[in-house]
Amino acid sequence: MKLATLLDGSRDGQLALVSRDLGMAHYATGIASRLQQVLDDWGFYAPQLQDLYDSLNAGRARHAFPFDAQQCMAPLPRAYQCLQGHAYLHATVLEYQARGMDLPASLRREPLLQQAAGDASLGPCGEIVVPSAAMGIDFGAGLAVVTGDVERGCTPAQALDGIRLLMLANTVSLRALETIERERGQAPLLSRPATAFGPVAVTLDELGPAWEQGRVHLTLQSTWNGRKVGLCDAGPEMDFHFGQLIAQACTTRPLRAGSIVCSGPVSNPAVQAAKGRNDWPRGYSSIADKRAMETLQDGQPATAFMQAGDTIRIEMKGRDGLSLCGAIDQNVVVPPERPVAGTRDAR
Amino acid sequence: MKLATLLDGSRDGQLALVSRDLGMAHYATGIASRLQQVLDDWGFYAPQLQDLYDSLNAGRARHAFPFDAQQCMAPLPRAYQCLQGHAYLHATVLEYQARGMDLPASLRREPLLQQAAGDASLGPCGEIVVPSAAMGIDFGAGLAVVTGDVERGCTPAQALDGIRLLMLANTVSLRALETIERERGQAPLLSRPATAFGPVAVTLDELGPAWEQGRVHLTLQSTWNGRKVGLCDAGPEMDFHFGQLIAQACTTRPLRAGSIVCSGPVSNPAVQAAKGRNDWPRGYSSIADKRAMETLQDGQPATAFMQAGDTIRIEMKGRDGLSLCGAIDQNVVVPPERPVAGTRDAR
Repeated sequence: MKLATLLDGSRDGQLALVSRDLGMAHYATGIASRLQQVLDDWGFYAPQLQDLYDSLNAGRARHAFPFDAQQCMAPLPRAYQCLQGHAYLHATVLEYQARGMDLPASLRREPLLQQAAGDASLGPCGEIVVPSAAMGIDFGAGLAVVTGDVERGCTPAQALDGIRLLMLANTVSLRALETIERERGQAPLLSRPATAFGPVAVTLDELGPAWEQGRVHLTLQSTWNGRKVGLCDAGPEMDFHFGQLIAQACTTRPLRAGSIVCSGPVSNPAVQAAKGRNDWPRGYSSIADKRAMETLQDGQPATAFMQAGDTIRIEMKGRDGLSLCGAIDQNVVVPPERPVAGTRDAR
Repeated sequence: MKLATLLDGSRDGQLALVSRDLGMAHYATGIASRLQQVLDDWGFYAPQLQDLYDSLNAGRARHAFPFDAQQCMAPLPRAYQCLQGHAYLHATVLEYQARGMDLPASLRREPLLQQAAGDASLGPCGEIVVPSAAMGIDFGAGLAVVTGDVERGCTPAQALDGIRLLMLANTVSLRALETIERERGQAPLLSRPATAFGPVAVTLDELGPAWEQGRVHLTLQSTWNGRKVGLCDAGPEMDFHFGQLIAQACTTRPLRAGSIVCSGPVSNPAVQAAKGRNDWPRGYSSIADKRAMETLQDGQPATAFMQAGDTIRIEMKGRDGLSLCGAIDQNVVVPPERPVAGTRDAR
């Protein structure tokens, strides 16, 4: 199934099914109005939604209308739980190397997860509004899953059974604030304004064989200001698969239905290019990664962070060449300055 | 108003009003069924609830029944946003001093906030279930507010207007895991299993003059295994008031209705006792604080963390001597060991 939440002026939007080719949509009215409601009682709602989905794909749904990603909120506009993983260690290794540090061994053994905010996620076309471009605006192209109820102490294999939906995620970071927060011994908070999610959340059967043991074996495309900067392989180089991320989170507590677990930026390792120089032919999924690559290659970063008016597009195509979840397509907005409380450190 | 959420088998429970003396309750049925619904549209629901509350206090409510805190879920059983503050710097100073470090100057200028989990909060009598007592089970007695919508870039004064409700909070920490997480450069995640909240959330008018500019000028009592260990003054020594905590969180993003902001453990500074020795006559709101006090006094901690069967009771009385929010009254449960995934680091 492909599910979307359409703007209707309410905080939670209106649940709709979207056809496999993303051409048509149909409100789930009469079955369920909100995605959280479906996740709370998946066994009851999913078969009914599946029937409607089948009708929609067969062209038999009576009130279908053309699907428009611009009308989408995040599939789960507000989530009770959102965790940010660092599933692609290459990105973390890069980050440490560029700071002249080795990756701590414990990060290889167990995935790093951070509590993130799920209260005000952006839709796929939601503007990235940041008080100042000096904050170091960065995108972070990754994947995310939405879970059902997952028990405390589950194994990674059990955790896989708890996955209900897959989404695309753009974890926006403010890197200048992140540095300040790190120096304060604080986890990213002010430096993570709002994550955006792709227009459509898909059940795992939509992935076919591209879904394998908690990994998505497809390419994630990131296009920054119209230029393809990342064609990263999301599959084999995901060091911790989604089951491992979820099981880690469940070490001391359960996850409840509607929890979002993000992979973090997709990242592939370097290859040896001419003259022993490292190269990253598949590009990058965040500017911080690119800057770390530049630092390792040339001693300093060359690529600047995003500016007002910049655009970022993130998309993943299935093996059939069709867009799997639709595209995240955002632009950066820096409102005219006004006195803002609490940003002293950021200046 | 005093509001509670009663167990009804559902994830969000059933909203009820509780009389000022906590003697009687009345379902809010016919007005609203869930607290989140009220917070989403406070201006519409609050006056209706106030009418029912007035009737209940006057003994005129028709379907009132005796209030039982044991039937309570957290007032907001699942919240889209939960932030953990460190509003009482004395606690943070102690923690740093016991580790032989000075408090970083930036922590004096701006409050430290951490993203916390709001997806599975415990009710006031919810068991503290922890896989192993070796994890260093600690309570953390503090206050929390629930907000309406608060804009990005608000001032602390504007933020105060966004506060809807006050609650008691017990932020349970697993200190052994916290140390491991700190060494990994990670914010507390596995070390924060689930926060419990007092049975009743109160509007600020219930506090009368005890609410002053974002601070609660009352004493927070912590009773561990039947012994009063903390009688901490929550008022003047709150270094960052709730408006400042909220404004800090809103530096780069808005907070949406139903966000919980916790103060962190209430802590009072040392007084000079005999022979220049520091003493903390008001006691402590978390065992970590007590252990830090012992370390500073005698070079090492003497008090052990909580064990299976331990109880913790947290309560705050108003100036009329009545319990303001009812009591948090939890006990620790360590289930029989079974193979648990992902806790390797914790052993």
